[in-house]
Amino acid sequence: MDPAQVDIPPLKDLTIDNITENVHMINSRCPDPRLKYLLERLVSHVHDFARETRLSTNEWMAAIQFLTSVGQICTDVRQEFILLSDVIGLSLLVDSIDHPKPAASTEGTVLGPFHTHEAEHESNGGTISHDPAGEPCLVLCTVKDTAGKPIEGVKIDIWETDSKGFYDVQYAERPGPDGRAVMESDVQGAFWFKAIVPVPYPIPHDGPVGKLLKLLKRHPYRPSHMHFMFEKKGYDHLITALYLRGDPYETSDAVFGVKESLLIDLGTVDAKQAEEYGVMEGSKLITYDFVLVSDEESRKLREKEAMAAMEKLGRRMKLYNGLPVPDVD
Amino acid sequence: MDPAQVDIPPLKDLTIDNITENVHMINSRCPDPRLKYLLERLVSHVHDFARETRLSTNEWMAAIQFLTSVGQICTDVRQEFILLSDVIGLSLLVDSIDHPKPAASTEGTVLGPFHTHEAEHESNGGTISHDPAGEPCLVLCTVKDTAGKPIEGVKIDIWETDSKGFYDVQYAERPGPDGRAVMESDVQGAFWFKAIVPVPYPIPHDGPVGKLLKLLKRHPYRPSHMHFMFEKKGYDHLITALYLRGDPYETSDAVFGVKESLLIDLGTVDAKQAEEYGVMEGSKLITYDFVLVSDEESRKLREKEAMAAMEKLGRRMKLYNGLPVPDVD
Repeated sequence: MDPAQVDIPPLKDLTIDNITENVHMINSRCPDPRLKYLLERLVSHVHDFARETRLSTNEWMAAIQFLTSVGQICTDVRQEFILLSDVIGLSLLVDSIDHPKPAASTEGTVLGPFHTHEAEHESNGGTISHDPAGEPCLVLCTVKDTAGKPIEGVKIDIWETDSKGFYDVQYAERPGPDGRAVMESDVQGAFWFKAIVPVPYPIPHDGPVGKLLKLLKRHPYRPSHMHFMFEKKGYDHLITALYLRGDPYETSDAVFGVKESLLIDLGTVDAKQAEEYGVMEGSKLITYDFVLVSDEESRKLREKEAMAAMEKLGRRMKLYNGLPVPDVD
Repeated sequence: MDPAQVDIPPLKDLTIDNITENVHMINSRCPDPRLKYLLERLVSHVHDFARETRLSTNEWMAAIQFLTSVGQICTDVRQEFILLSDVIGLSLLVDSIDHPKPAASTEGTVLGPFHTHEAEHESNGGTISHDPAGEPCLVLCTVKDTAGKPIEGVKIDIWETDSKGFYDVQYAERPGPDGRAVMESDVQGAFWFKAIVPVPYPIPHDGPVGKLLKLLKRHPYRPSHMHFMFEKKGYDHLITALYLRGDPYETSDAVFGVKESLLIDLGTVDAKQAEEYGVMEGSKLITYDFVLVSDEESRKLREKEAMAAMEKLGRRMKLYNGLPVPDVD
């Protein structure tokens, strides 16, 4: 680049006290107001963190090495940065901010690092888990809108571990996807399938995030759960999961995902159900009625909560593509 | 692990407002008070960042992917996380906090990602840069303590780019280290060597950090400089650099390293110097007198500044291995 085009404010003699303001200045030429705001807040928080902790060079270098190792262990089927975000509660927080739920709707929770795009499509009644050691479980669900009207044609991603607590992608050698499927709700908003009873399992803890948990004296376990993701044009994308009540890790989930409204009790298949759904009488049963929020309702609630939060912070902001940026006019 | 050993506080139904406190609780069993404090501040800032920006799931995912790509481009000779820290001013800030300098001493600046441990030892008068296209430059320096007493036997790392603005390690095929050396000060505290006149150069910008700079409309250039690192038992480790005054990027360094006290004017070798040092009369000359601070003086200043900063924040803190932690007794 031509040095003559350097039109940024002069930066020199930066100190503990003036560097933040100067980094903001050099970043202030960013043409995207949202990216500019994100960087402004990020730099402020990172600098305040260093100032408040008097971060040492050794600690900084340890952090550099930690983040590098987090990046380097990532593969197509392992996302250690999502795991890091999960164990510090950031994932749950971002989901709560981005997908606010009115009282009558199903709450969201963490996506986790094990959703894939290779699950096979299954029709109602299909079997999504083929682990012979898993305890069979019939799952009967519906999906409705906040007015109680069934929603047809919702694309539903479902995924769970095998009986040993591992997702299919955690096996180096595997014939194909298992313990996961993509389904579609029928005209009554119903979808049902044969799965296995979820079991508790540790998040992958043989990497840098596992080492961090160990240093913090935290266990890596998640309580038994089954993941669900709902997608249909016009409705807010719902990422959620159902948790088995009474699980030993119910109140200490390593990734902060459990919510009271998502806890379920395992039921038992009765004679009538056994005949209707073609499963053994007495086998385990999960039932749940999911409620989706419309895009419009979700957007309004998200924007209202965003502006209320900005007002509480005393910042003069406006919305830009639905997200807050400083109102500088 | 035995679930019966789960003695952490119950966590459930976490919301935008209560999650931070709950993450602090689950992390509070960490036996190392310094790591506990670092995590407490880190989680607070990361959560506040998400709340203040109303961080969206898409933005969060873009950040996850950005950090992953930063980690994945790192190699033995490329440290993109240090580069990221450099371009947001964090590296300079951490150095300022960890290595406070009394008025009479040489200021520190950013290490950058190109220091290596493979430089060859050179005696006084040695040539550290062998690029035939570089403009020869004689460098005459001394290193003294704050009382003006020469310090003998200081280990000095020196590194600079070639005439094209690349460090040796940036060439895939290279016969060995060049543009770098490790020297030792003599009994007069002097060290001198033959190098080339530094040139401005862009930091590596073909990776994720370069993409970020582009989005922010920032140039990736550093003004012409030569790096120095000083190490001797009893003295505070000094990482610094000398910058050529009048460089086109002097006031817009991509990594915020320039300080007035580290700016130098290129001199010219006179007849006497030419004979004494065995170089051409009229060739370029850099002279500088470095001043090191004792470990003791540095430690006292660092601890004093740390406690003053904590008091300003209104936090009741104590020092633990020289770094602040909450005083909870």
